[in-house]
Amino acid sequence: MYDHAGLEVLERAECLSLLATQPVGRIVFTHRALPAVEPVNYLLDGEQIVVRTRPGSKLAAATRNSVVAFQVDDIDPDRHNGWSVTVVGRASRVEDPAELHRLAALPLRPWAPAPHDNFIRIAIELVNGRRIVAGPDIPVSHLPR
Amino acid sequence: MYDHAGLEVLERAECLSLLATQPVGRIVFTHRALPAVEPVNYLLDGEQIVVRTRPGSKLAAATRNSVVAFQVDDIDPDRHNGWSVTVVGRASRVEDPAELHRLAALPLRPWAPAPHDNFIRIAIELVNGRRIVAGPDIPVSHLPR
Repeated sequence: MYDHAGLEVLERAECLSLLATQPVGRIVFTHRALPAVEPVNYLLDGEQIVVRTRPGSKLAAATRNSVVAFQVDDIDPDRHNGWSVTVVGRASRVEDPAELHRLAALPLRPWAPAPHDNFIRIAIELVNGRRIVAGPDIPVSHLPR
Repeated sequence: MYDHAGLEVLERAECLSLLATQPVGRIVFTHRALPAVEPVNYLLDGEQIVVRTRPGSKLAAATRNSVVAFQVDDIDPDRHNGWSVTVVGRASRVEDPAELHRLAALPLRPWAPAPHDNFIRIAIELVNGRRIVAGPDIPVSHLPR
């Protein structure tokens, strides 16, 4: 299935599989009433995205029980193809000690030098995925009328 | 200069130089009161970002005279280093015929199959850039106290 732009619409299951393949995504939130976006490394843990943040950071504060978007892509700029998956869901700080213990054992280590001891989870609610296929493979005839 | 996460803070001029090096960024906007993000190919044109959209698209509607963020990064997932630049500014549809003529001559071609005849510009107001340097090069002693 293709959308009006001619991009292939990906199903939820494929989107989740793709999310599991990348180490870095971008979390989209609101900071001081302005749109904000930060790249973070993450793990897909079932149907939630897990990221680590620094206590007291802008990201930690802005994602406390708010609805955020999380976007991951893998795009080849030379071939003009690739895919992008965006999820929307409620972000919350993990407080439960048992859950914190479990998450701390996951292979998710902060890349930035400062300690990132907060765990934020994003419960995946809406999922939206597109694949772009450029060049002679473009199925223009499949565009919606 | 380093921020509290231990990331190098990039100056505006360096951010603009970096923006000129990549073909794809992510535009962050609001759609139906939810955070939304879409990867797009773009050009840096002076102090504005130029993207092409499909008339009638979600992106075209949502970016009409609204404040958006635009994020570009180049991150090496194996070495855990790279950079990210985010700009915030007002997006508007280009309507002036002379300006449309000029923009249409720029080397900015849509990658998606459907026609993308609208030009959106984002006037770069706030600029925020960070570089992550991982491993033995981490200057932890340079963290703000």
